[in-house]
Amino acid sequence: MRMDRITSPEFESTAANGPLVILPIGATESHGIHLPLGTDTFQAEYVAGEIEKRMNNVIVAPTLPYGNHSSLKNVPGTVNVSFDALRSFMSDVLISLASHGIKRMLIITGHAGTSHMAAVTEACRDVVSRKDVKIMFVSDYIIAAECEEFRFEGDGHGGIIETSRMLDIGPAIVKKERPSGKFADSSGIILKDASSCIPDGIVGDTSKADAELGEKINNYIVGELIRRINEVLS
Amino acid sequence: MRMDRITSPEFESTAANGPLVILPIGATESHGIHLPLGTDTFQAEYVAGEIEKRMNNVIVAPTLPYGNHSSLKNVPGTVNVSFDALRSFMSDVLISLASHGIKRMLIITGHAGTSHMAAVTEACRDVVSRKDVKIMFVSDYIIAAECEEFRFEGDGHGGIIETSRMLDIGPAIVKKERPSGKFADSSGIILKDASSCIPDGIVGDTSKADAELGEKINNYIVGELIRRINEVLS
Amino acid sequence: MRMDRITSPEFESTAANGPLVILPIGATESHGIHLPLGTDTFQAEYVAGEIEKRMNNVIVAPTLPYGNHSSLKNVPGTVNVSFDALRSFMSDVLISLASHGIKRMLIITGHAGTSHMAAVTEACRDVVSRKDVKIMFVSDYIIAAECEEFRFEGDGHGGIIETSRMLDIGPAIVKKERPSGKFADSSGIILKDASSCIPDGIVGDTSKADAELGEKINNYIVGELIRRINEVLS
Amino acid sequence: MRMDRITSPEFESTAANGPLVILPIGATESHGIHLPLGTDTFQAEYVAGEIEKRMNNVIVAPTLPYGNHSSLKNVPGTVNVSFDALRSFMSDVLISLASHGIKRMLIITGHAGTSHMAAVTEACRDVVSRKDVKIMFVSDYIIAAECEEFRFEGDGHGGIIETSRMLDIGPAIVKKERPSGKFADSSGIILKDASSCIPDGIVGDTSKADAELGEKINNYIVGELIRRINEVLS
Amino acid sequence: MRMDRITSPEFESTAANGPLVILPIGATESHGIHLPLGTDTFQAEYVAGEIEKRMNNVIVAPTLPYGNHSSLKNVPGTVNVSFDALRSFMSDVLISLASHGIKRMLIITGHAGTSHMAAVTEACRDVVSRKDVKIMFVSDYIIAAECEEFRFEGDGHGGIIETSRMLDIGPAIVKKERPSGKFADSSGIILKDASSCIPDGIVGDTSKADAELGEKINNYIVGELIRRINEVLS
Amino acid sequence: MRMDRITSPEFESTAANGPLVILPIGATESHGIHLPLGTDTFQAEYVAGEIEKRMNNVIVAPTLPYGNHSSLKNVPGTVNVSFDALRSFMSDVLISLASHGIKRMLIITGHAGTSHMAAVTEACRDVVSRKDVKIMFVSDYIIAAECEEFRFEGDGHGGIIETSRMLDIGPAIVKKERPSGKFADSSGIILKDASSCIPDGIVGDTSKADAELGEKINNYIVGELIRRINEVLS
Repeated sequence: MRMDRITSPEFESTAANGPLVILPIGATESHGIHLPLGTDTFQAEYVAGEIEKRMNNVIVAPTLPYGNHSSLKNVPGTVNVSFDALRSFMSDVLISLASHGIKRMLIITGHAGTSHMAAVTEACRDVVSRKDVKIMFVSDYIIAAECEEFRFEGDGHGGIIETSRMLDIGPAIVKKERPSGKFADSSGIILKDASSCIPDGIVGDTSKADAELGEKINNYIVGELIRRINEVLS
Repeated sequence: MRMDRITSPEFESTAANGPLVILPIGATESHGIHLPLGTDTFQAEYVAGEIEKRMNNVIVAPTLPYGNHSSLKNVPGTVNVSFDALRSFMSDVLISLASHGIKRMLIITGHAGTSHMAAVTEACRDVVSRKDVKIMFVSDYIIAAECEEFRFEGDGHGGIIETSRMLDIGPAIVKKERPSGKFADSSGIILKDASSCIPDGIVGDTSKADAELGEKINNYIVGELIRRINEVLS
Repeated sequence: MRMDRITSPEFESTAANGPLVILPIGATESHGIHLPLGTDTFQAEYVAGEIEKRMNNVIVAPTLPYGNHSSLKNVPGTVNVSFDALRSFMSDVLISLASHGIKRMLIITGHAGTSHMAAVTEACRDVVSRKDVKIMFVSDYIIAAECEEFRFEGDGHGGIIETSRMLDIGPAIVKKERPSGKFADSSGIILKDASSCIPDGIVGDTSKADAELGEKINNYIVGELIRRINEVLS
Repeated sequence: MRMDRITSPEFESTAANGPLVILPIGATESHGIHLPLGTDTFQAEYVAGEIEKRMNNVIVAPTLPYGNHSSLKNVPGTVNVSFDALRSFMSDVLISLASHGIKRMLIITGHAGTSHMAAVTEACRDVVSRKDVKIMFVSDYIIAAECEEFRFEGDGHGGIIETSRMLDIGPAIVKKERPSGKFADSSGIILKDASSCIPDGIVGDTSKADAELGEKINNYIVGELIRRINEVLS
Repeated sequence: MRMDRITSPEFESTAANGPLVILPIGATESHGIHLPLGTDTFQAEYVAGEIEKRMNNVIVAPTLPYGNHSSLKNVPGTVNVSFDALRSFMSDVLISLASHGIKRMLIITGHAGTSHMAAVTEACRDVVSRKDVKIMFVSDYIIAAECEEFRFEGDGHGGIIETSRMLDIGPAIVKKERPSGKFADSSGIILKDASSCIPDGIVGDTSKADAELGEKINNYIVGELIRRINEVLS
Repeated sequence: MRMDRITSPEFESTAANGPLVILPIGATESHGIHLPLGTDTFQAEYVAGEIEKRMNNVIVAPTLPYGNHSSLKNVPGTVNVSFDALRSFMSDVLISLASHGIKRMLIITGHAGTSHMAAVTEACRDVVSRKDVKIMFVSDYIIAAECEEFRFEGDGHGGIIETSRMLDIGPAIVKKERPSGKFADSSGIILKDASSCIPDGIVGDTSKADAELGEKINNYIVGELIRRINEVLS
């Protein structure tokens, strides 16, 4: 059930059944020469959509397509929302959902930058301290990256995992190029322009990416999340 | 050109050509028993999409699907973002686009609540005071409602204009019912729960709505905006 | 009863009788070559004073003589208070009055700019959500301008209505000149300096203004407000 | 010259002559059983008016009639504005005046509470750090209280100085009673309700107050301020 | 008992006995050519330590070594924290202590600038309005300066009192020089760089300072505070 | 060189030599039944002190002894500062140091909570965007924990690394008990009281801790930081 496609009375009667509301957070961020700016959005929406297909009593709320960025905020096409604005916006959205009786929420963020995650986490903490609601906040990217099976040496932003997943989700918007790049650690230096940490625009060797792997990763993420929902969010 | 479907280098080269970036602002708001919660989102996105089809050098940025609501914020399904959070979020998005060299922006908001409009207007003012950028901010609803041809007595939120437009844009998500409702003026009283101003959930007699009228209105809005863009935003 | 002229014990005993507190909001804003900067202040205070004369159990609180301005903020003599400062200041004043047991308040603003109105409205909403108090917020200008009898083609800021009213309220501070001006619509463009929307400094043909008309308008506003107070604020 | 009574062009031509703008800050605060709530407002306005009469090239801006209160904020009739709202409001007003070319400002506050003074001081500091403007910020009450001649043992809020001054400025709004009260020091304890520090509502023995003394004090304040203006603000 | 040296269970059992928590606020501020930047820190910590030695049931919390500065903020070595940051930080620390059951707190600030004091006072007011806790907030410097015995003509920042106290507390970090300086009053002018008010870097004739006097002053402060604690904070 | 022990002129002349300023951030946080609340403070100060001993041209600024806590904020003795207050406070301190000509700063935080780190990181980003200064921000704990040699299975807060280090730094304030505990992952659930993630108060088997190991870890951290300073911060 897509929240934007149902009416107010439909929402009201569904809300009375204790549904899980999934809120995808995407991003508009440079993902190299081969992946689209909306990569994080497409991934989070895909995962949300699959969970909705496979489970009952799920409402997918409209995607927030902008996030907070550090490393790549100055790279063309990245739209950066400040820590405070993202935190406040998310806090308001969640409080509003809770005020309508929603008790279970799953927030899936495609983008997994540290400050971005911290901003949304702070928003969630604010909400659980004010409302009687259970919130799970995860990054689909981190779920994949933490899985032993998908730990590719030196893989990261726009790398093997992300490229493979996009080849599964939306091959038509993945370009032919398969770039390769390395993360350049700053040793703790806070950089004015942190794009120097990702000098090649992406991190990882995307020549190793393919749609089959992407499908496997996407399925793993969806399965893992369904497992967690059943375990701690139902 | 959809911003989320292009790569960073594609955005960069397009941005160098002085494109118009259109940013649709939708809403997740009760629209009566017959229209979906995402009505404002679908309308703003439709208008943005049509302009993109009919003009050159246009980038459509991802839609912000949540806004600020007063009257209907407590009605099931409305997701309300506070004045400050909406203003800050919009300000950040626009500043970010401007920092990538975008000089012309058109913001189309489906929702036209007074505070919502004021919040986005304040954000735009902040941006034009800090960046060398031209911003047009309009509500597609207001453009239609101000047109002599579409002034239906007592029509408003979720009424003839909105129902007709949705019958043109997405008939599959419009329910069969054709409710009727009146606006109840509060004489300046600031209400704790302003939903009493829209006691029937909508304003207008939707039995008079039809797809043909909707098509006419949608075409009018798109045409009028293209006219304005050519006149003052090119 | 003027709040600033009574003692604390007098206020306390009056407050116990459920009085209406009227708070005038003025402005210090350019009103052309013929009207004083305090035009909005004088008008709001006049209306408040007349209501106080004609009704029982009314306290007039001290006038806030500064507001929020968009179009004319850069024109000499306009004193502009930001949206946030005006909202916070008003919210504090109203909360303070409510904490002393005031249950009925009427805020009359002479200035009627959209952002100014939104800022005060947001403050009122904040107060009614926190305190058990009834607040009516109106602009005397809008009450006049919405009256069929006083709808003069192309009339607006510093025009026929405002000039006539000042000729009734304070003829000694109205200059001899009777300028004429037109509103220049910006088609939704958010202007860095919006004074170009009021290129002549005022809007309307003030040669048509006179004291008799002003008296009629002023009486209409006072009468209309007394009617509304009796109807919904008593 | 009263700013609210002149037109925009008059303000502009006056501003070109390097005038001193005086901004009175009043208060709406309990002043015992004998003095009106607007005591601080009347005193600040009186001093401003006298300086304007006796000096050339002076503009008196409209009075801000609300301030920040600690001790008496819960006593009937006191209208309390928070530290932050007062600071922001004042900062905006002063920045706006400076943006119109005003280079010399004198702010006279009738109320002299520590936090109130700190809030306005912080606003002034903000303004002088951003604009090329000279601001003098004083309390007429403190000027009197620091004068050897007017140091009455145990005199303070609503006491001999204030009562005498009001008997000179507005005898018609001073009641017959002449109360007496003592300040109760809290030894550094931060009180939830600090009105216990002024248990009698005022501080001092007002039976010693009279109009003649008030005139002397008022003259002293005006003279002292003119001296300072000539010395450091011209 | 030093809070940083005890364990969580020790804190818990102590907190159950209704202890007094003393929180020293120091500063990092220029104190002339002879006194160290941490002068205010050392003094506040010394007083806190002595009270802890002489009384039972006292916990000394870690010292906050930075404060808010006006006059000397631009002088080398002064570390300035803004009014708002100091207020928020202090408010959070005190709320946190109160949430652990602490009911009695004594805040001792070495630095006694007006804005600094106002910021901490505002924080304390916020806390007592939200939590059932008794807070005493004092400056050890002001306690000494208000004592008849230690009123040295023209003495102030870095002068006889402060130099003498440091000669008692930490003679090894007091330099040989004994400078002299005067306070230059600004007559109410809000200075962009207020260091001109302390043109010599300090205020007072430090040639009159000695360790014996310092010991007497330090003892007086400690005794006076113990007296107050016994009287109003136990 | 300890900043609080030098005078303003000494700071000024040192600052002219391009020194490295080290700012330790500690915490007041529950560290189980055996370690003191100030564990993070002592560790950060120790590391700062050792670097100062072993390198030239180093100033150690006073330690900020309070931080932001999530998991353990409700456990007795933890003093929690909000994200915003910590960020603002740190930003002000760093800006102030930069305004005195300091170009190289090293911030060492003993506490390494995600939100705490994000708050300080945001502050540093703010500073480097406004001032020409190089800031390295590290957690001594993370440096140790990321070293292959000190990766003890299931070790974390108050565990083998921290206990060993404290046995080296301050054995007198480490209790006899050697508790053991496990981290309980919340699967992404945002907990109202996250102390359930550390149900034993600490994470790791401290029976394996000893002073010799602690010395090795402390030396490693100091050496690693000196290496990084020489490499990227000199």
